[in-house]
Amino acid sequence: MHKSQSRRETVRVGVAGATGYAGQELVRLLARHPGVELRFAMSSGASDRVPSLPALARLWDGAVSSFAPDRLAADTDAVFLALPDPAAAEVAPALVTAGRRVFDLSGVFRLRDAGQRARWYPEVASLDGAVAYGLPERNRERIRAARLVACPGCYPTAALLTLAPLFAGGLLEDDVIIDAKSGVSGAGKTPSERTHFSECHDSVSAYGIFSHRHGAEIEQELGLPVTFVPHLVPLNRGILETIYARLRPGVSDKDVAAVLDAAYRDAAFVRLLGAELPHIKHVVHTNFCDIGWRVDAASRRLVLVACLDNLVKGAAGQAVQNFNLAFGFDERAGLWA
Amino acid sequence: MHKSQSRRETVRVGVAGATGYAGQELVRLLARHPGVELRFAMSSGASDRVPSLPALARLWDGAVSSFAPDRLAADTDAVFLALPDPAAAEVAPALVTAGRRVFDLSGVFRLRDAGQRARWYPEVASLDGAVAYGLPERNRERIRAARLVACPGCYPTAALLTLAPLFAGGLLEDDVIIDAKSGVSGAGKTPSERTHFSECHDSVSAYGIFSHRHGAEIEQELGLPVTFVPHLVPLNRGILETIYARLRPGVSDKDVAAVLDAAYRDAAFVRLLGAELPHIKHVVHTNFCDIGWRVDAASRRLVLVACLDNLVKGAAGQAVQNFNLAFGFDERAGLWA
Amino acid sequence: MHKSQSRRETVRVGVAGATGYAGQELVRLLARHPGVELRFAMSSGASDRVPSLPALARLWDGAVSSFAPDRLAADTDAVFLALPDPAAAEVAPALVTAGRRVFDLSGVFRLRDAGQRARWYPEVASLDGAVAYGLPERNRERIRAARLVACPGCYPTAALLTLAPLFAGGLLEDDVIIDAKSGVSGAGKTPSERTHFSECHDSVSAYGIFSHRHGAEIEQELGLPVTFVPHLVPLNRGILETIYARLRPGVSDKDVAAVLDAAYRDAAFVRLLGAELPHIKHVVHTNFCDIGWRVDAASRRLVLVACLDNLVKGAAGQAVQNFNLAFGFDERAGLWA
Amino acid sequence: MHKSQSRRETVRVGVAGATGYAGQELVRLLARHPGVELRFAMSSGASDRVPSLPALARLWDGAVSSFAPDRLAADTDAVFLALPDPAAAEVAPALVTAGRRVFDLSGVFRLRDAGQRARWYPEVASLDGAVAYGLPERNRERIRAARLVACPGCYPTAALLTLAPLFAGGLLEDDVIIDAKSGVSGAGKTPSERTHFSECHDSVSAYGIFSHRHGAEIEQELGLPVTFVPHLVPLNRGILETIYARLRPGVSDKDVAAVLDAAYRDAAFVRLLGAELPHIKHVVHTNFCDIGWRVDAASRRLVLVACLDNLVKGAAGQAVQNFNLAFGFDERAGLWA
Repeated sequence: MHKSQSRRETVRVGVAGATGYAGQELVRLLARHPGVELRFAMSSGASDRVPSLPALARLWDGAVSSFAPDRLAADTDAVFLALPDPAAAEVAPALVTAGRRVFDLSGVFRLRDAGQRARWYPEVASLDGAVAYGLPERNRERIRAARLVACPGCYPTAALLTLAPLFAGGLLEDDVIIDAKSGVSGAGKTPSERTHFSECHDSVSAYGIFSHRHGAEIEQELGLPVTFVPHLVPLNRGILETIYARLRPGVSDKDVAAVLDAAYRDAAFVRLLGAELPHIKHVVHTNFCDIGWRVDAASRRLVLVACLDNLVKGAAGQAVQNFNLAFGFDERAGLWA
Repeated sequence: MHKSQSRRETVRVGVAGATGYAGQELVRLLARHPGVELRFAMSSGASDRVPSLPALARLWDGAVSSFAPDRLAADTDAVFLALPDPAAAEVAPALVTAGRRVFDLSGVFRLRDAGQRARWYPEVASLDGAVAYGLPERNRERIRAARLVACPGCYPTAALLTLAPLFAGGLLEDDVIIDAKSGVSGAGKTPSERTHFSECHDSVSAYGIFSHRHGAEIEQELGLPVTFVPHLVPLNRGILETIYARLRPGVSDKDVAAVLDAAYRDAAFVRLLGAELPHIKHVVHTNFCDIGWRVDAASRRLVLVACLDNLVKGAAGQAVQNFNLAFGFDERAGLWA
Repeated sequence: MHKSQSRRETVRVGVAGATGYAGQELVRLLARHPGVELRFAMSSGASDRVPSLPALARLWDGAVSSFAPDRLAADTDAVFLALPDPAAAEVAPALVTAGRRVFDLSGVFRLRDAGQRARWYPEVASLDGAVAYGLPERNRERIRAARLVACPGCYPTAALLTLAPLFAGGLLEDDVIIDAKSGVSGAGKTPSERTHFSECHDSVSAYGIFSHRHGAEIEQELGLPVTFVPHLVPLNRGILETIYARLRPGVSDKDVAAVLDAAYRDAAFVRLLGAELPHIKHVVHTNFCDIGWRVDAASRRLVLVACLDNLVKGAAGQAVQNFNLAFGFDERAGLWA
Repeated sequence: MHKSQSRRETVRVGVAGATGYAGQELVRLLARHPGVELRFAMSSGASDRVPSLPALARLWDGAVSSFAPDRLAADTDAVFLALPDPAAAEVAPALVTAGRRVFDLSGVFRLRDAGQRARWYPEVASLDGAVAYGLPERNRERIRAARLVACPGCYPTAALLTLAPLFAGGLLEDDVIIDAKSGVSGAGKTPSERTHFSECHDSVSAYGIFSHRHGAEIEQELGLPVTFVPHLVPLNRGILETIYARLRPGVSDKDVAAVLDAAYRDAAFVRLLGAELPHIKHVVHTNFCDIGWRVDAASRRLVLVACLDNLVKGAAGQAVQNFNLAFGFDERAGLWA
């Protein structure tokens, strides 16, 4: 997987939603990607201020232009969508039809079950066979072939990287609890009371208990129900999930380590810490997902802790990693700084 | 000043703007004030949720009601206005006419000069002689007599408590710089990009250079021009001002201490620290203003540092302190927890 | 419980460990308590700086004196111990023998089982019958009679207030998970790498999985094993616990509400929010514990969320509440500001 | 300046002090530098844990080894010293004598005046002509030739980049005030009460008024006295300086812009924002210094605001930039991600 690219030509790329937090991170990553020509950074809120993205001045001095899906369809090879759900649902089909490879950061194409999709994303047309679930460590072959890669966000990514190999290996009983702590940038860039500094600084709260659509997504990929409770914590970037599972009788701490080691032996971006517990500070501004765990043999209780940067491995970095797979680049291209 | 009250009857009080940050702090303070009957807590955004102010449940379980100035005029003795500037400008005159004592936290009645008022608060009618500038430590007699007390906010309060006695004593040359660092709650409760958690967490920035109306207010009270630069820093409550002045020839460190000591000998809420430098953490949730200073004799440079809680001494606490003066209570009543 | 005190004389009180975070909070609370004469605030690190506690200047201008257990035994009625575990273990027995009522914030006298005590607090002598477990809402009678009240800290307090009535009422199956998020002040005042600003700001991490002695304390009081995982989150004051339980067959959401309502009908400091979820910001600087919950009927999963201020209801406020019980004051005395 | 390197061979490099904050940042930058072979990362606190720097796992999996100056002298071409002042003073001379190029992040070799050096760094031997003051934008030629580059820290870098061209151009009167706001990582990695999370979170304070050695360094480079007051603000990385100067009569806003534009036309890492004011959030994790300014023509008051990341442009990035100059690399090599 790590072998260097043999490609010579650059891929013409467009970003839609370039001024949001995930969108800005996409521009930052793609501007330095050795195989990318960043042709368009579009935003429905584009203004004439120059530079449009002050944090990126000198690193990328292009102008953010008004959102124009037709131009994306006409003059790119690949399009990254960092749009609100309805906008993504609206523009993706035409881009796929036009032959573009689409890397979508929204949630609208991630659920396969029609009933679940109707519940969480009503009125989104199915793209069926064109779509791959974009968790590269678990789904490389489908991602390479798909027209649209539906990139999972921070919550499913941390949960699935941790749990999917263990369930696949038959190590766990079915009852799983995922307690997630998220920084505020995960709520996006639109001001709201909930994300007002004075409301979330110095506080912690739970939200979305039994009613968070990312729980449905985790359940789809694991094939079993989970209890998923997200919390807002007062930091900007990064999430940490504490996952409570129970080992099947006869399964040991060593079995857990063996299964995870085997699953991620060739995964550049999953760092297994064993009994060391991960810290959000070690993953921010990287595409890594760090995973640690502890077992209490007497009760067969397994506690796993996973963390990642919600704007990188939980959004823009994941999308670039999928792009690398789809276009034959080294999986780390543009992500290894 | 500290003598206990002799009053027996309680004062009937209303708060307009009770769900904003200063308004909630007013409700918190007035609910435990021994001489107050809190009759109304009104808000234009009042809803039917009970309790209306979840942080205050049990401490004050009244309902926040819809904003109704007529009821304030009819059934109170005193009204606290914690409203946006235009709303305060609109309702205050009628309350004064109705004979209510008004304690206004907005900026609209603080500037006396017609030209300055026209610049910063166009279309605000003058209330002229009815108004006192509500800095209690500098203006007790006028506050006792006034119909409307225009309570200064955090920036002028810290600057004037520090500088006014020194200029009045003739200790300083005219050139003064005030570098202010403010927590985010000073920007109010309305969500905005500027006060979005992800925008102000982990950042510091200056704003309003040469164009902040609180600079005009400081200049009015000192009677000379100042350079005033506010900054947003990533904490919720509290401001700290670093003030750069120059001593007149022959003035010493001891003179500074003597003048400040004399000015605040009887001031319950000004704590003079001398060469100890104040910390915001020591004043939050109190009505104190802490002041420290250092002198470099060779250059005659005087650096003063003052801090206070913008929602207490810079807003609700200051208004209650003025209320105490106006109604003959101990100045500390309701503020000394 | 809320009836006013009839006592007339003040209680002579001493605080040991007055410069730590819980100790400072004790001084702050006791200095304004209407029935207390605060005779001693002692610290092994007392210096000659005046005032010793700059945040409390004016509110309490006494001097912090060197730690002298003999003077506490001789000249007080009640002693609050906010000391490190070994120091508390050393001085408490003599104070009890001298006839003082002791309110201990350390962990050393909380475990009753000799084996557990030997594991977590080796070499601590038992005080046996003299001790009451100081959770006032669950143990009022014993606290009134005890010589030493072993006040539980933030983690057990939130967990037990939430779970104890539900287990006592037979509503829950035995398997319980407690995921706790704690501010940094809970780690105390001694600098360490773990509590260094640059290490814990902008990060979250789990610690003490399967090896935290507060887990043992929760298990003792509930009488069954629990999975307890604490986390450090980047705020100063406050903890929030998310508790995952399972209802026994036939138990409904209404049963949960009924049991909790009955348990806390007369509890001044427990606020039940029902399906509203609590926020740390609403409890900091108060003695409240806020509790909310949600039920998924299909899976019988019950998720409870509880939060409190670790320095107040999780430390100093709890101790003062116990003191009020022991000396016949209104339970809210000194705590209702 | 931006022309690409023609060098082919890699430079053998060692880092001393690799586990401190600046040291870790050096390892991070040098590990991906295309012209560097990172041979040694040493620390007096090196342990056997693998990986030694968990945040850098995968990016740099070398072992941090015990501090061994002899090995640095024997087997490197260039050495970066990220050591406490006394350690840097002790080991630098021998490394210079051994022919190594030394990039020192400490303060001990920055002051040229013997009297000043005796005051702030007593007992440090002079290295005289071997030393260049390592502010690359102002001192390129001397840095290319020097044996030891004394790299200025965050405070002097922001102040000098802003003021030096303006004084050199004769635009300013002599009286300058620098009000600096610094994140906590600038205080280093050693735990202390001052940098304890619970002490600096939610607070702001000034320190070192009239007694900060970086003020002396700024005065040396400008050739005139300044008033320099640093403050600690509750964020981890980044400083912002607000600088108060006065224009000489006849000097305009345009003159300021012209002089700064000319000074930094070819400077990759200085971004001039004009009347836009910089934000710390836009420079963290970069080697940029952002500068904005405003002029009040009537009073000739000039307010400049500059910010940078104290661990990059104020420490490790600056040192790497100097290294690039000294070894003929593009100035941006290893710094442009």
